[in-house]
Amino acid sequence: MNDFTRLSINSATTKKWTLAQVVEGCVNAGIPAIGPWLDRVAEAGLDKAARLIKDAGLRVSSLCRGGFLTAADAEGQTAALADNRAAILEAVALDTKELFLVVGGLAPGEKDIVAARQRVADRLADLVPFARENGVRLVLEPLHPMYAADRALISTLGQALDLAAPFDASTVGVAVDTFHVWWDPELKGQIERAGRENRIASYQVCDFNMPIAADPLLSRGYMGDGVVDFATIGRWVRDAGYSGDIEVEIFNQEIWDTDGNTVLATVQERYAELVLPYS
Amino acid sequence: MNDFTRLSINSATTKKWTLAQVVEGCVNAGIPAIGPWLDRVAEAGLDKAARLIKDAGLRVSSLCRGGFLTAADAEGQTAALADNRAAILEAVALDTKELFLVVGGLAPGEKDIVAARQRVADRLADLVPFARENGVRLVLEPLHPMYAADRALISTLGQALDLAAPFDASTVGVAVDTFHVWWDPELKGQIERAGRENRIASYQVCDFNMPIAADPLLSRGYMGDGVVDFATIGRWVRDAGYSGDIEVEIFNQEIWDTDGNTVLATVQERYAELVLPYS
Repeated sequence: MNDFTRLSINSATTKKWTLAQVVEGCVNAGIPAIGPWLDRVAEAGLDKAARLIKDAGLRVSSLCRGGFLTAADAEGQTAALADNRAAILEAVALDTKELFLVVGGLAPGEKDIVAARQRVADRLADLVPFARENGVRLVLEPLHPMYAADRALISTLGQALDLAAPFDASTVGVAVDTFHVWWDPELKGQIERAGRENRIASYQVCDFNMPIAADPLLSRGYMGDGVVDFATIGRWVRDAGYSGDIEVEIFNQEIWDTDGNTVLATVQERYAELVLPYS
Repeated sequence: MNDFTRLSINSATTKKWTLAQVVEGCVNAGIPAIGPWLDRVAEAGLDKAARLIKDAGLRVSSLCRGGFLTAADAEGQTAALADNRAAILEAVALDTKELFLVVGGLAPGEKDIVAARQRVADRLADLVPFARENGVRLVLEPLHPMYAADRALISTLGQALDLAAPFDASTVGVAVDTFHVWWDPELKGQIERAGRENRIASYQVCDFNMPIAADPLLSRGYMGDGVVDFATIGRWVRDAGYSGDIEVEIFNQEIWDTDGNTVLATVQERYAELVLPYS
């Protein structure tokens, strides 16, 4: 019998399913946790979503996502902080401690990446007190550098840890997502550091498919379909002391076009073969 | 009058031109140096190519390229070393000191990136004595991490410098190519380090166009068309002590479809506006 007690399905993996369908699918498959995106929660309505998940006996491993903190103008910054405070409250309502932040890219027309990254640090400092008061951890997610310009100016785990350093580990953590970090020559050392600093808030698994999809956002794949070494990264994360949920988040058109129950079955099969033995 | 004394055109920028056409185009445009690729040299014939460039009074800023050193089997490794020794001799014949190495990606089906990177270090050690004897510098080029799996397992400037560290700076250097490194949160510090260690063998400029082209190799653009901050990176490279050639290397279908002389004129215009003031 395979042990799925740490497996969580991110709702983006079964994109065409409503939240109720994800919940039902996970219950039927014996998957004990989900990581919902805000859009699925909004569709269901926050209170109903929270009740739905709780009544089904599922955990919420994380909420995806806040972030997009890089606005250069005061109005944009105010709006971003309001959005993120709302997301913090949604995390509370959904009974998860972990709120992913995808921090955003350059402002329109901007070239000064150093200044833009400083704004990320500044907005993070603005948000931390509210997150702390509400018992929510802001999870800084380094994204693959191909998304630096338009999605996330946090490009490495080391950079995420540097950004987190001024704050309590219980309020600012980091995510290790195999798709985004597999290439990093510093990965082993930075995962060890993340463990020492008690910052690992999430371990997300999916593969990096080659060749890169024409829409590079959709190049994620089932574990085993791409180039990621799950055994090695899994051991590093385990040896760093992480024992929390392992969330599967895949953006991939072909997988989105597949029946959700089939997707869950494949995820479980790959997880049992490639992830579980090293976790 | 703009000063083009440090400008060099990489032959990939005018892909449809023969070497003779690149040489003629550069002479006519007042561009004093070129960076040929081996394919253009092979077409012309090595001796003829060397004479052609010399007779035109041009410098060869670098030769592109050796590398692809990651074969996992003995046969592939022997072949790679032979290819690279031949490229070293071609660099000598073309009277350039700088031979770019694009080191290659994972072996077919391989997942163990740590082992593959170790093979890069091992093959580099194999090549260094021959390069030194011939007065050629092996230029390690970090490529954007989106090419880690299939083109270059050197993904950051810091990693390139670590790989170079065991060897004399006159035999192993590094390239700073804005397209590949602009996103790196460690860039400033690693350029400073590269300067201190006398490793900067080439500064290549082109932009990183967004959105990323469907073929991600072709997402390079004219300076000014993408997200790269040439002023900041240019100052870092200058302040690190680099005063050599500045090579423009653009892979871009639209630019390849443009008349070569028009391309050179645009390159000169953008260079004068965005690169020269900070070099």
